[in-house]
Amino acid sequence: MTPGDLPAAIAELRDALGPTAVLAPGDPAAGFVRDERGLLPARPAAVLRPRSTAEVAAAIRICARHRVPVVPFAGGTGLVGGAIPLGDEAQLVLSVQKLDRIRSVDQADFALTAEAGCVLTDVQRAAEEVGLLFPLRLASEGSARLGGAIATNAGGSNVLRYGMTRELVLGLEAVLPDGRIWHGLRSLRKDNTGYDLKQLLIGSEGTLGVVTAATVRLVPRPRHHAVALLALPEPTVLTTLFALAREWFEDRLTALELFGRTGMDLLLSHLPDQLPAPKDPFTRPHPWYLLVEATATRDGAGLAAQLESFLAEATRLGLVTDAVPALDRPQARALWALREALPEAEKRAGGAIKHDVSVPLGAIAAFLADTERELAVAFPGVRVNAFGHVGDGNIHLNVLTRPERAARVSELVYRVVAERHGSISAEHGIGVLKREALAVAREPLELELLHTVKAALDPLGIMNPGKLLPG
Amino acid sequence: MTPGDLPAAIAELRDALGPTAVLAPGDPAAGFVRDERGLLPARPAAVLRPRSTAEVAAAIRICARHRVPVVPFAGGTGLVGGAIPLGDEAQLVLSVQKLDRIRSVDQADFALTAEAGCVLTDVQRAAEEVGLLFPLRLASEGSARLGGAIATNAGGSNVLRYGMTRELVLGLEAVLPDGRIWHGLRSLRKDNTGYDLKQLLIGSEGTLGVVTAATVRLVPRPRHHAVALLALPEPTVLTTLFALAREWFEDRLTALELFGRTGMDLLLSHLPDQLPAPKDPFTRPHPWYLLVEATATRDGAGLAAQLESFLAEATRLGLVTDAVPALDRPQARALWALREALPEAEKRAGGAIKHDVSVPLGAIAAFLADTERELAVAFPGVRVNAFGHVGDGNIHLNVLTRPERAARVSELVYRVVAERHGSISAEHGIGVLKREALAVAREPLELELLHTVKAALDPLGIMNPGKLLPG
Repeated sequence: MTPGDLPAAIAELRDALGPTAVLAPGDPAAGFVRDERGLLPARPAAVLRPRSTAEVAAAIRICARHRVPVVPFAGGTGLVGGAIPLGDEAQLVLSVQKLDRIRSVDQADFALTAEAGCVLTDVQRAAEEVGLLFPLRLASEGSARLGGAIATNAGGSNVLRYGMTRELVLGLEAVLPDGRIWHGLRSLRKDNTGYDLKQLLIGSEGTLGVVTAATVRLVPRPRHHAVALLALPEPTVLTTLFALAREWFEDRLTALELFGRTGMDLLLSHLPDQLPAPKDPFTRPHPWYLLVEATATRDGAGLAAQLESFLAEATRLGLVTDAVPALDRPQARALWALREALPEAEKRAGGAIKHDVSVPLGAIAAFLADTERELAVAFPGVRVNAFGHVGDGNIHLNVLTRPERAARVSELVYRVVAERHGSISAEHGIGVLKREALAVAREPLELELLHTVKAALDPLGIMNPGKLLPG
Repeated sequence: MTPGDLPAAIAELRDALGPTAVLAPGDPAAGFVRDERGLLPARPAAVLRPRSTAEVAAAIRICARHRVPVVPFAGGTGLVGGAIPLGDEAQLVLSVQKLDRIRSVDQADFALTAEAGCVLTDVQRAAEEVGLLFPLRLASEGSARLGGAIATNAGGSNVLRYGMTRELVLGLEAVLPDGRIWHGLRSLRKDNTGYDLKQLLIGSEGTLGVVTAATVRLVPRPRHHAVALLALPEPTVLTTLFALAREWFEDRLTALELFGRTGMDLLLSHLPDQLPAPKDPFTRPHPWYLLVEATATRDGAGLAAQLESFLAEATRLGLVTDAVPALDRPQARALWALREALPEAEKRAGGAIKHDVSVPLGAIAAFLADTERELAVAFPGVRVNAFGHVGDGNIHLNVLTRPERAARVSELVYRVVAERHGSISAEHGIGVLKREALAVAREPLELELLHTVKAALDPLGIMNPGKLLPG
């Protein structure tokens, strides 16, 4: 887009929002605008901190009038650079962090309305206070904010039972690219009255407007957890094991998290100083591990019996070589800690070239075998740390090798993803880091449709330009 | 839109599809194009019956070139006239009934790909053959077709557990308004790669393109059913009862269907000739009834225990006056038959002015009380038959009175819906019958956004003009 009149816009923004709500570049208070992964420089022309939906609307109206691009920013925990201004252009960052009110919690309605700047753990806490659960569970939930989770359609560890963020949003309030406020906060379970506009904003990564508040779905709060770590002979057992787990636990199945021996080795080698230090719960090494979690509200005994039946049948069928059920909450937490420490162990091992991909459930084993084999041929000796939310077909396929190989490694991985009819971004989105990969992965017609939607809703192109849509 | 060159289009369509695939108006073979409710005349300029996605694409290209409007038609069971051509305009009907192949069933992937013309019971059967369930359950499932269910985001009796059609669709194949084919058949559980285009087509009622095939989600097939009919003292107990049911059954809760004494009286008075004749399972009349169903795959004993615990606690808390649990499948079917026969009983009683509305879960009792009271004042002596999928906040509020009162009655009902932050169409959609109501119910900005999306994706306006979008 043609750069607009930035100084005029900033002057008007100071008038409209007050001088303390418009931070100059270099202001220490603006230091929160930085790339989570440290891959991208963050040089916003200014950082806006509106305090209300009305102020967000006023800010966007000014930006639209002056054709100044705006990058919406929530918790800043995204992994694809979606909330970081492009380095060489004059872009404003609009932070929603000051919109941080829980507006209402409606127990009877199993719904909660919160502003976009609420930290996810605060939303979870507000639900817990009325005995319910807000089921979005992310590694970054202590700093990720609701608006960002919605803009990126965040996934996480509970998707198997409760769905992606998309499934958890009942209604939205948003400021559109022309500065008008869309009042779409509803808590209806059924509402067939025209195109579902909120679906466009969810996952649009700030390119179609700024989410300012949302009404989200709450669910009964589980009080019982059944957790076990399973040792698998090979990934080909996964589909049968998954079907068996769904048969026994039904919708109580909350998480199925896979990781391999590479991951276990990384944990044992690189995190000896952690308290407690990771410990292999098995007496001998296994090629693959599967963390299973199921939860129940009242029926703790029934849940425990389901776990026992499932493990017995899985063992009898040879799907599982060994299994460690957690006997209490601390043991369950210790098993989860293994899975959750994988990214940190990987980081201490020198980092990795990361891929957040998904494939159809039936293709997981083939995908793992293909990538392992092809990477070994192309990059002899390379280590692959594959882990992830395997119940959703979501693999974090991370390759431990020199960063300068990133382009070639990713090209190989994404080619295998395409062969297996998968997605190059399961849950992290596109942002700026995956734009080129998206251009290759999607059909031209689909890319054209993305641009058609963008042009229709943001004709001036001021909302987060350079993100999500391939150029 | 400006009427196009209809005779030229029809001649080209005969060439492209073959003469037997283009039925003239009045051809007895085209008789299936009629309004399910008998409210609207159906006078298509011709009826197209393409046999493949390629033929659908060829037909739409011809229609686009000649600016001839097309009305997609699947099972024809819609209740708002969405698939009926407008009487006074030269519109073609495009039936997808000959696209009726189940393309694949993938057990490992819990997914099935079927063409838009598949009858829902055929899709259900294909899932059953591999031991799984396609959970969309509609009264019209024996004649409703997949493409129509997707185009209208159909709901039905299992939404509480499995979601609307929107939640069941993993991928779509569709012909766009310019005749290009969008190959969006994916079976991924997670795919954050740009705007979720399928969400636009789902529920768009044929105004943005023609769905030709879909990949849908399958789930483990329940083998155990717990069903009970509860007698309620008053609807104000519903929210507590609902929360209690969710606590005990968790996600096993499949249906919560409410109906009132008016409904029971209609059943007993008007269906004595049914085999078996409806029978009030209670010894005395009650003001409200709630049918509860929960299902389980393997754990029949646990499910039965949950029902027992739930009923005991609900009775102890005074939420339930009486309860009849079904002891076997025939008893369960007999209880369901009461709920399912309500529309027929209503029809035999002389018909009703129907409303398919939803309100937030916490507002159901107030909505029922408000409408009952206001209707009694405005139309003394009128009878209200309220029933529906109350676990989703979805009420079919049907008013037994003279049809000429329809406009005034509906205006009153929709006003109360608005006061309670509800929706004028929970699951039936807008079609042509609710266009005016939609214009009143939605904010001008929302209506404008609907038109923006429509204009972007169907700039010629040839797809089902006059439907869904208020004029």
